[in-house]
Amino acid sequence: MALALSLGRRGMGRVWPNPAVGCVLVRGGRVVGRGWTQPGGRPHGEVMALAQAGDAARGATAYVTLEPCAHHGKTPPCAEALVAAGVARVVSALEDPDPRVAGRGHAILRAAGIAVDTGVLAREAARDHAGFLSRLSRGRPVVTLKLAASFDGRIATATGESRWITGPAARRLVHAERLGHDAVLVGAGTARTDDPLLTVRDFGAVQQPVRIVASRHVCLPCAGRLWDSAAELPLWLVHGAKDAPGETALAWQAQGARLIPAAGSGRQIDVAAMLQALGEAGLTRVFCEGGGTLAASLLQAGLVDRLLGFTAGLSLGAEGRPSVGALGLDALSEATRFRLVDLREVGGDAMHVWERPAD
Amino acid sequence: MALALSLGRRGMGRVWPNPAVGCVLVRGGRVVGRGWTQPGGRPHGEVMALAQAGDAARGATAYVTLEPCAHHGKTPPCAEALVAAGVARVVSALEDPDPRVAGRGHAILRAAGIAVDTGVLAREAARDHAGFLSRLSRGRPVVTLKLAASFDGRIATATGESRWITGPAARRLVHAERLGHDAVLVGAGTARTDDPLLTVRDFGAVQQPVRIVASRHVCLPCAGRLWDSAAELPLWLVHGAKDAPGETALAWQAQGARLIPAAGSGRQIDVAAMLQALGEAGLTRVFCEGGGTLAASLLQAGLVDRLLGFTAGLSLGAEGRPSVGALGLDALSEATRFRLVDLREVGGDAMHVWERPAD
Repeated sequence: MALALSLGRRGMGRVWPNPAVGCVLVRGGRVVGRGWTQPGGRPHGEVMALAQAGDAARGATAYVTLEPCAHHGKTPPCAEALVAAGVARVVSALEDPDPRVAGRGHAILRAAGIAVDTGVLAREAARDHAGFLSRLSRGRPVVTLKLAASFDGRIATATGESRWITGPAARRLVHAERLGHDAVLVGAGTARTDDPLLTVRDFGAVQQPVRIVASRHVCLPCAGRLWDSAAELPLWLVHGAKDAPGETALAWQAQGARLIPAAGSGRQIDVAAMLQALGEAGLTRVFCEGGGTLAASLLQAGLVDRLLGFTAGLSLGAEGRPSVGALGLDALSEATRFRLVDLREVGGDAMHVWERPAD
Repeated sequence: MALALSLGRRGMGRVWPNPAVGCVLVRGGRVVGRGWTQPGGRPHGEVMALAQAGDAARGATAYVTLEPCAHHGKTPPCAEALVAAGVARVVSALEDPDPRVAGRGHAILRAAGIAVDTGVLAREAARDHAGFLSRLSRGRPVVTLKLAASFDGRIATATGESRWITGPAARRLVHAERLGHDAVLVGAGTARTDDPLLTVRDFGAVQQPVRIVASRHVCLPCAGRLWDSAAELPLWLVHGAKDAPGETALAWQAQGARLIPAAGSGRQIDVAAMLQALGEAGLTRVFCEGGGTLAASLLQAGLVDRLLGFTAGLSLGAEGRPSVGALGLDALSEATRFRLVDLREVGGDAMHVWERPAD
């Protein structure tokens, strides 16, 4: 199952709105098939593994990281494919809460006389499928917030200089994180100041994550790297729903960007409404790279599931730009405490990963 | 030598202005004596080890973390004591640059026919003796700056609430650091806001570090925990040299505090002048616990040798108090890059230790 989970992770960021499932077929102590959900979400992991195994699937045990699907979508259900291949036993990590599946995949297998064990490495699988599960249960993707800052928590000098606070190894790791997410999200200020491309460099990325800019009034110049790449690479602009798209928004749309309306409150977009809209659009995993205002809105609304921090060995002082904007906290006890889950040196910077405690 | 170094560290924070020396005597493969410089700086480590070994010192090899002293101070020179005890060989880590020693300790040993090897684990010894060496070569103690902050670099809420951002394990480690330093230093703002006692709790501390508050005009209320403990525990107030001590300063002096004048520039004390004054007063290792203004002054002046950072898993937002005040940096390239030397989880907080690169 651990192998199946690691195979499944290969699909992360490339299979939305589907889950990134891994599957391993074992017969007589030998791995006869390995598969994972393919870019775009199809074929599913089970189908890939069965195709690799061919006749060797007969009598084999299938390890799958999520209950095999039971519904006829764009492909026939995987549960039926496992039955047809003559698999003897299925070990699955989690029941799929998708109402179209929800135990019916396991039921199809059992009805065909296949032994079914569930709940194996369920906790690990729930972590891997967190985005898919979040979209089903809460209607929104999971959110990782990246904060790459000086040791006094600054992401740029007063003049906006931010290249580079962290070193090349940390920046490379950020690209790997982008690759594992469905989308990369930034606020309008960051898009204007940094003129980022927000793509994955290296790693042989065949499919780029969706680039998203949140900007209530689409306050973005019709120029720069996002503008220039809007036709070739996916770019979504989340704007205020109350306001009809203005001239700038329509210009971006004509350039190739997709407009996503979300409710606004005051000068900013309501981040909860934004994430619901992104969930409806199919996203399961979003990687937010700031800036401070958007980071503060997400933290304040309790919408950050995972924090990826990098601390560099320099100080920029109180005039530097804060990594997190104003939160309006009245007392220390109001702040949510995240749990440290990973801590590592990355090319001379300190990397620390935190998870939001379970609600 | 590694054992001698670890013994020597036991004296750290308690032997200033003397070095914290460790000594191990070995004869026939057996440790016959172990010693380290005692609280107050005397007896020295060699004398302690010789006393423990007694007659067994004859023909033994002495491992010492610094060249044995050669001058008659309040005690006879250790080099002569080693000769008198009949030690056959001395292995030392470093030559003592103190002009009263500077090779003469080794010379006395060699003249008596004792084999002398030097430079063993010299780098480690230079790190352990950094404060002693800094005072000799630069006239100032080494400075460790502690920054215990939220992951967005805040040390308190807007209202000044700072108890507690980090957990009990991190705070306990801070007490261990206080114990290993000659003095604990804070700015006047921290003294006023936090009303700290600045002592070492636990660890069976027999000698408390000197508590130092830097305040050009001694803007401190004649009340609180520092005031109440000024008679029993060492407390120094660094104030502006240009100004004659005012009424408040004299009241603190009467209460038991020692006044240390240092040149001032503008509203603040010149931190370089302050550290020279502290060096003259005998301090070799100073632990600065903030606040942000003092931290910024020390960083700006290039006077922080070691940074001890704790990052807690919560965010306090941009209205929180910054861990480092304004630095007046014009460009990212002007910021000094510290080198990450340790990274560890401490009770759920991330601890990161950085060292200033060699000049």
